[in-house]
Amino acid sequence: MERKILLTEKEMPEHWYNIMADMPNKPLPPLHPGTKQPIGPEALAPLFPMELIKQEVSTEKWIAIPEEVRDIYTLWRPTPLYRAYNLEKALDTPAKIYYKYEGVSPAGSHKPNTAVPQAYYNKQEGVKKISTETGAGQWGTALSFACQLFGIECEVFMVKVSYNQKPYRRIVMNTYGATVHASPSNLTQAGKHILGETPDSPGSLGIAISEAVERAAGDPQTKYALGSVLNHVLMHQTIIGLECIKQLEKAGDMPDIVVAPFGGGSNFAGISFPFLRLNFEQGKSIRCIASEPASCPKLTRGVFRYDFGDTIGMTPLIPMYTLGHNFVPSPIHAGGLRYHGAGAIVSQLLKDNLIEARSHYQKECFEAGLLFARTEGIVPAPEANHGIATVIHEAKQAQKEGKSKTILFNLCGHGNFDMAAYEAYLSGKLVDEEVTTAEIERSLAEIDNLQV
Amino acid sequence: MERKILLTEKEMPEHWYNIMADMPNKPLPPLHPGTKQPIGPEALAPLFPMELIKQEVSTEKWIAIPEEVRDIYTLWRPTPLYRAYNLEKALDTPAKIYYKYEGVSPAGSHKPNTAVPQAYYNKQEGVKKISTETGAGQWGTALSFACQLFGIECEVFMVKVSYNQKPYRRIVMNTYGATVHASPSNLTQAGKHILGETPDSPGSLGIAISEAVERAAGDPQTKYALGSVLNHVLMHQTIIGLECIKQLEKAGDMPDIVVAPFGGGSNFAGISFPFLRLNFEQGKSIRCIASEPASCPKLTRGVFRYDFGDTIGMTPLIPMYTLGHNFVPSPIHAGGLRYHGAGAIVSQLLKDNLIEARSHYQKECFEAGLLFARTEGIVPAPEANHGIATVIHEAKQAQKEGKSKTILFNLCGHGNFDMAAYEAYLSGKLVDEEVTTAEIERSLAEIDNLQV
Repeated sequence: MERKILLTEKEMPEHWYNIMADMPNKPLPPLHPGTKQPIGPEALAPLFPMELIKQEVSTEKWIAIPEEVRDIYTLWRPTPLYRAYNLEKALDTPAKIYYKYEGVSPAGSHKPNTAVPQAYYNKQEGVKKISTETGAGQWGTALSFACQLFGIECEVFMVKVSYNQKPYRRIVMNTYGATVHASPSNLTQAGKHILGETPDSPGSLGIAISEAVERAAGDPQTKYALGSVLNHVLMHQTIIGLECIKQLEKAGDMPDIVVAPFGGGSNFAGISFPFLRLNFEQGKSIRCIASEPASCPKLTRGVFRYDFGDTIGMTPLIPMYTLGHNFVPSPIHAGGLRYHGAGAIVSQLLKDNLIEARSHYQKECFEAGLLFARTEGIVPAPEANHGIATVIHEAKQAQKEGKSKTILFNLCGHGNFDMAAYEAYLSGKLVDEEVTTAEIERSLAEIDNLQV
Repeated sequence: MERKILLTEKEMPEHWYNIMADMPNKPLPPLHPGTKQPIGPEALAPLFPMELIKQEVSTEKWIAIPEEVRDIYTLWRPTPLYRAYNLEKALDTPAKIYYKYEGVSPAGSHKPNTAVPQAYYNKQEGVKKISTETGAGQWGTALSFACQLFGIECEVFMVKVSYNQKPYRRIVMNTYGATVHASPSNLTQAGKHILGETPDSPGSLGIAISEAVERAAGDPQTKYALGSVLNHVLMHQTIIGLECIKQLEKAGDMPDIVVAPFGGGSNFAGISFPFLRLNFEQGKSIRCIASEPASCPKLTRGVFRYDFGDTIGMTPLIPMYTLGHNFVPSPIHAGGLRYHGAGAIVSQLLKDNLIEARSHYQKECFEAGLLFARTEGIVPAPEANHGIATVIHEAKQAQKEGKSKTILFNLCGHGNFDMAAYEAYLSGKLVDEEVTTAEIERSLAEIDNLQV
């Protein structure tokens, strides 16, 4: 069999899958941060174009992908599905391992799947500028690229620790024409507030979101875009899993286990939701596992509660698994996973035991990534290494049980901008950051004060 | 029509094309550096495995690609051929522009096309270690990756200016398990000699070759590998052009012009030689243009003479277009093009007016690269930008003439490890280095002393 299972551009899915239509329990509604009452779509209008707001609350099962978006998708889509023969051999496992490689996009990750439609809908509604946050830089890169294609100005607040760890990520965004600030910055009230309290704050996605949202809220010409967490973002990513199903059908296979790294949920949702549909519709029992960092364990050690999406408390309250919106994860190299909460849909699915979660320490992840690079060739992004760690765990499990399982995972991006992290690992400088229960409890106590 | 023209793994070519079979005038033989007499294959035996030496002197038209090499090729091959619709639109040109994207390889360039067979033939003959040089780092990365797959130790001498400009390139090589030294180093006589004369030498490919060759010559367990220039290296790259022909046939098209960046010749040979075959066999008149940096203009301002492949004078004398083996090009960002000479085959073809050459200044190249990134999405390697500059020149020419030409170019790699160069360009710090005629004459005078 061929290593790579390809689709033609004509075979690219024409719709995104909206899991809201099939969920046994829909997510609870978002609440207004002041009144604590459910908010309607109109509350989001200052931040997002109307078409995205409609998608955010839609319960239609299939949403058509606009022709213009499909056209741009073909710059890199459909992406290849690989059978990881070399990795299987190195692990001496009876498991069959497949990976979907999203690193072929210009931005080097799965993020353009939603950046492009978000820029498109903003353009349709006459928006001139979009502000956003970025962690590791992958989302910021994707949005810069998408905005450039549609002639929209792009301003990115990049989490300071990543800004410093990855200067070249910033330059890629500049190359695509965007302006990039280290967050927390002095450009917003939110940033000034954080810097006042913690002058040497490494930043976090939550803080950067506060800054970007404030920027958009204060300017009628500017909208805001989020790279994960929200329903419409997760939905745009489902093209990943939809392609995988077509590709696996060509290979005559179907996964027992689907794995993806977990930050806010879009990576995981993108590959797993179309397989959850098969569970819902056809009674299959495909296990979907979210892989999160041990240093930011909202799914495995957080609680299910209403919490803010950002740190300052500007966003609506969202029903989520969270570590508390003030939780500042240690500066691990997988910057894209340093987020305190999980999106509402994924949280509800976990609460209903329809998906699983597993956490991994940093060193185990880089060990997994190194093995992958040395067998399959691609140097994975640190975020992707979390998924690979889970895959290796499951492949070894299959070996113990002597069972031939089929495992699929989302190789969400390459690590070309993360070589400092690999150097730290190779030189033995990487540490496993421990999060104490007291720390989590302290952070969660602050949510209790919200009295939702 | 689809943007990407893909081939299945089954459609991947099974042979490399050896242009030696079709050249009207074969290259002159290499000479022994001491006796100045033609050398036989046995003279190369200390440096290369016998199978590669056979390929070096073969006049067979087609050489079969070993099954194991083909298997590894499928980790990234066949590579996609793109129609550059967005670039065409931005240029408002009647020309049709296609690009072959070799940056999808794990190493991010076309270099693994020869690194993998070179490692394979070394492995077949029991070699334990391979030494090599690298400029921008793309060749070193490719060989590190290939050696890792075959369990061969790999030692890389990296041109010092690139070593310092691109620390992350070194770490990629480490990630693939290789050892990397900045060249000139204190580890070899050649390096010590250069450092003695020029302690702050930025290095050059010629110097790094001297170091790597010395390393292999001094150890019977170690062989040497070169990433360009030599006949067998150029031949391994022809899989690029052979795939292009199949892909363009699918698109119902055929190029009028084929363009590639030029360092030592493998990039250019890879895409153009299979089209030159069509000129030879079918009387077509496809123009093949080599794009070189204005700061290292061996094809456009050098002379055709016998010269050394390295700086110290350890290699055989090769008939080549050269600037003199002591020529140290200015430290431009396209490190892969900083080489004083051209391979023997390409030199003979240029001498016989069967190919063309054009030089570009650095700023023009980055301007071209930025336009490409902002339209097609991929951020190209600085080397690739030289080809894009030529393509844009030809596309504008087509516009002036009102002719619809078809232009194909080799997008030989991505620029993910070259963002410092883009930052220099974006911040206006990039300079166009001028090479004076006196400088070239001074360097060439030293070859006259060779009295070949």
